[in-house]
Amino acid sequence: MVSKKMLDLGKIRSGIRDIYEYGNKLSEKIGAENVLDFSLGNPSTPAPREVGNTIKHIVSELSPKEYNSYTSAPGDRDTRLAVARNLNTRFSTDYDENNIFLTCGAAASLNIIFKAVIECENDEIIVNTPFFPDYKVFIEGQGAKFVLVKCSEDLTLDTDELEKNINFNTKAVLVNSPNNPSGVIYPKENIDALVDLLNRKQKEYGHPIFLISDEPYREVVFVEESPEFLPNLYDNTLVAYSWSKSLSLPGERIGYILVPTNATDYTDIYAAISGAARVLGYVCAPSLFQRVIKDCIDVKPNIEVYQRNRNLLYTALIEMGYTLPNPKGAFYMFIKSPNNDGKDFCERAKKYNMLLVPGEGFGMKEYARLSFCVDTEKIEKSISIFKELMSEYDLG
Amino acid sequence: MVSKKMLDLGKIRSGIRDIYEYGNKLSEKIGAENVLDFSLGNPSTPAPREVGNTIKHIVSELSPKEYNSYTSAPGDRDTRLAVARNLNTRFSTDYDENNIFLTCGAAASLNIIFKAVIECENDEIIVNTPFFPDYKVFIEGQGAKFVLVKCSEDLTLDTDELEKNINFNTKAVLVNSPNNPSGVIYPKENIDALVDLLNRKQKEYGHPIFLISDEPYREVVFVEESPEFLPNLYDNTLVAYSWSKSLSLPGERIGYILVPTNATDYTDIYAAISGAARVLGYVCAPSLFQRVIKDCIDVKPNIEVYQRNRNLLYTALIEMGYTLPNPKGAFYMFIKSPNNDGKDFCERAKKYNMLLVPGEGFGMKEYARLSFCVDTEKIEKSISIFKELMSEYDLG
Repeated sequence: MVSKKMLDLGKIRSGIRDIYEYGNKLSEKIGAENVLDFSLGNPSTPAPREVGNTIKHIVSELSPKEYNSYTSAPGDRDTRLAVARNLNTRFSTDYDENNIFLTCGAAASLNIIFKAVIECENDEIIVNTPFFPDYKVFIEGQGAKFVLVKCSEDLTLDTDELEKNINFNTKAVLVNSPNNPSGVIYPKENIDALVDLLNRKQKEYGHPIFLISDEPYREVVFVEESPEFLPNLYDNTLVAYSWSKSLSLPGERIGYILVPTNATDYTDIYAAISGAARVLGYVCAPSLFQRVIKDCIDVKPNIEVYQRNRNLLYTALIEMGYTLPNPKGAFYMFIKSPNNDGKDFCERAKKYNMLLVPGEGFGMKEYARLSFCVDTEKIEKSISIFKELMSEYDLG
Repeated sequence: MVSKKMLDLGKIRSGIRDIYEYGNKLSEKIGAENVLDFSLGNPSTPAPREVGNTIKHIVSELSPKEYNSYTSAPGDRDTRLAVARNLNTRFSTDYDENNIFLTCGAAASLNIIFKAVIECENDEIIVNTPFFPDYKVFIEGQGAKFVLVKCSEDLTLDTDELEKNINFNTKAVLVNSPNNPSGVIYPKENIDALVDLLNRKQKEYGHPIFLISDEPYREVVFVEESPEFLPNLYDNTLVAYSWSKSLSLPGERIGYILVPTNATDYTDIYAAISGAARVLGYVCAPSLFQRVIKDCIDVKPNIEVYQRNRNLLYTALIEMGYTLPNPKGAFYMFIKSPNNDGKDFCERAKKYNMLLVPGEGFGMKEYARLSFCVDTEKIEKSISIFKELMSEYDLG
């Protein structure tokens, strides 16, 4: 009657959504203030004031036809130019509107890229642990083989493991820094080693290997160190971006794909991206928000609450003896269960009405993910629970 | 390097877009006021005032988190309920929020439906001429066989031809009424014959055959007669809807899928729709516009200009001796070339700076499509050109 694959995907919601739904039910029962729901990456900080003001300005000053009409498929030219100029200023690049393809958010950006580059079912796309679970859904959905490579002990890229897994069929390596779920920013030497590896392998196999950089958290960073801008280090980089997190607009579905001019067959890649967007039914990115982005391109994200939450909880957890990588960016902590069983850790936390997501879905079952894009009060409340949990394990 | 299929699709833009781009260049050269561009279905009527007022109200009165956040994947519950209630009032149905899945517009609705119902590459989806060209792109893109069936002489459904083309592999029949490009509304007896045929064939093959109703033009109707509401006539109907045309919001990408409770395995279909939306990267429909739709669900479309343009031009063309079906809905006329060569007709029109789209892409090469969602002045100007064109043919 219907596709078995789609049915299964629709029935078996993602683990993250399951916990979120559980949290909603629990909130109805005992009150939302008593549930410490750290399951979803839904920004707790509202969109900056400039966004609302820009919407009001557009709607008051312009004719609806100027902002509700179809744009061209790659998006409004002026918006693309604004994005390109913003990148040029920050990363000393030389992009213009023809390097930018506006999309309906990061999930759209990734699907369009996969659909554009995958040539046949033998193609492989490599993802590193820990990873955002929908990568698997998207890559397999667009017809390639999902290849998972284990990260290093410190949750950075393990280039030896990567080398073992790259072969003639490798179409792309996907990286996500700052990382969801770990908060890790891959350090410069780690990226350099990856670039070196990819360059060698491209030569060896005689065809390009794409580096796909999924970076919705680029601006959500809590340390001096910034994520590397990969197109400046490796020509065949494709960037998937979204304003969901940086401008707190996750529901509005607005993002872009960057195709650098230096990529091999740049013109063909951009054309294939256009073709893929068309096949998938992405007619254009939402037009009002294309205009909003044009006017808000230089607005800084407001990460003050995330920074406070992070400092508070990270310091406390380390003091208590928990093992977790330093969450330098994004708004997640990836906490190792004291008995190396992330599921067990989440079950124990549940008894205190604290909701975490087991690491298994992210490819690392020893861990649990906590989203700290929440009110600080909830972070404060969680501290005594984490203490209790640790003492449970200490007792055996 | 990239997918050949996607590259070709990206390079070879749709015929409609090609003519539109030609029009833009011509406008730069001779001035937009001198180009009669009837190529695109971009509504010339702005969104009703209520839409802009609702946006301003939402942005002024609510916290951004209330309208910019993720909604659940099927969409905001209250919006879905508002859509269901609106349908219930108009069509004496009994839907609730669980029958509605909000999407990023009609192209998304169709792709999600195709992805959800297609089980294997042997599956066939039937489309009737004349048809919107992207149907082929979407159906093949989601992995089924595109089967084209010729319509009757009067451009309604030819159920004899349909019967010849339905077989065990037929997964669905797609209809579009009011029709793009013809403006035809399939009459009740035509739909009855189709329903009768589908019921017989479902029995014969022992499995459901879906009727997919693509109806973005349901409210854009110029006669007393309304398009049939198909779920009331055939249980296994899936409706793809969009507010692009009825509320003049084509750039905002907002629409829905209706899954009627009476459909066989209704729960599984809805779940497969959810799975398909996830695989394709449609996280949720744009959230601000979900709210706008909730508040504007009963706003009537403004079709006054289209009605005027239609009456003016249709009367004139019939008087001149042109052959075309009565454009009862949508905002297109599908004009038969006097020498049965639509391409030739478009080429001749081009010399007068009048841009039509050849019928070949819509599956009927004798015709040319004219979009009358334009300023009335351009329709008035076109009349003398159509006269000239007819006299060209009369001269041989």
